[in-house]
Amino acid sequence: MSISSFFPVWDQLTPDQQRLLEQSAAPRAVPAGTLLHSGSADCVGLLLVGGGQLRAFILSDEGKEVTLYRLFEGDICLFSASCMLSSIQFDISIEAEKDSALWVVPAAVYQTLMEQSAPLANYTNQIISSRFSEVMWLMDQILFRRFDSRLAAFLLEESAIEGSDELSITHERIAHHMGSAREVVTRMLKYFQSEGMVSLSRGGVRLTGREKLKALARS
Amino acid sequence: MSISSFFPVWDQLTPDQQRLLEQSAAPRAVPAGTLLHSGSADCVGLLLVGGGQLRAFILSDEGKEVTLYRLFEGDICLFSASCMLSSIQFDISIEAEKDSALWVVPAAVYQTLMEQSAPLANYTNQIISSRFSEVMWLMDQILFRRFDSRLAAFLLEESAIEGSDELSITHERIAHHMGSAREVVTRMLKYFQSEGMVSLSRGGVRLTGREKLKALARS
Repeated sequence: MSISSFFPVWDQLTPDQQRLLEQSAAPRAVPAGTLLHSGSADCVGLLLVGGGQLRAFILSDEGKEVTLYRLFEGDICLFSASCMLSSIQFDISIEAEKDSALWVVPAAVYQTLMEQSAPLANYTNQIISSRFSEVMWLMDQILFRRFDSRLAAFLLEESAIEGSDELSITHERIAHHMGSAREVVTRMLKYFQSEGMVSLSRGGVRLTGREKLKALARS
Repeated sequence: MSISSFFPVWDQLTPDQQRLLEQSAAPRAVPAGTLLHSGSADCVGLLLVGGGQLRAFILSDEGKEVTLYRLFEGDICLFSASCMLSSIQFDISIEAEKDSALWVVPAAVYQTLMEQSAPLANYTNQIISSRFSEVMWLMDQILFRRFDSRLAAFLLEESAIEGSDELSITHERIAHHMGSAREVVTRMLKYFQSEGMVSLSRGGVRLTGREKLKALARS
């Protein structure tokens, strides 16, 4: 992927602006598990995801995690450069969930470009709005949907991301993603198994009743 | 209030842009209780709050409400013009919580201005980021904080907004705000009363133990 392909508004930037963006973007390869951004203290810069998978999550004081959204190839991670958005008053953590190839654009460079270019500022607006939408979706899930329905939706989503019915994920890990407790997840998964929707093994969940899971996720 | 006072970047707009914004802004007086925007279907336009108080909330299919944030004099409501932000994929409802004086700027006009003016686009960015921050704060509350602590924080916030220790609000209404059930709120308020933190009357709550409430809200 080229830097230009991350920005649909590339053609509306001046040659100087394009050059600045290209030259300031530093490639970085990160192994799965790397914590890229934590809270509001650091300001790594804008991350352009060339490959792999990032996860944005929030963390409570007691270490409880909730996954907010994922970033895939072609996505831009803004919150790792939240220092340039003075109105962002919350802490998000970003980790590489798979081995990932990134470009890092320094926050100061991007901020300068946004101040010069209305198209880039408007595009950035769209990115923030998209993330906002994902968080609002999650909020809706947490507030208004039952846990069985959320868990079914989660398993289907994971299966779509992995491209497989076989998920190698622990109950502990699922609980982390959903901001729940392991016991709650285990209890519900056992119920799902008794209903023929999943089959459980050590450290893994296999989806065996997609249609039933889908119906539950929709409920 | 003048239109210009809503925009810290006013001086960075051209005279033409300033004129367009001023001329297109239509004054509107709305009584308390007016639903100004509901879901993503309508696109009233940008609301500039000249006086009064608006409430942004989400609504479940079953009619359960959760308050996201409030808008006061000098604030700008963007989500009533979410049609101009194609990436906004969620439904927010906006109502006048008190008699309010607004200016309505048509979404198309504002969008044109944002496309022309990098300062305005960047300022809009800041507004979205602020709202995003408020929603993330709420998310944190819901996910990580206990109900007693959230309720104490809610009562203190209401008291600050009203400028009084005497809140004329029903348990039903508090439950709506917090996305909880009336019984849960009543049970907790009775506990607060037994601890000397509040005194309950028909349709009202009086804060009698601020320090205790603050300590609980911080916990």
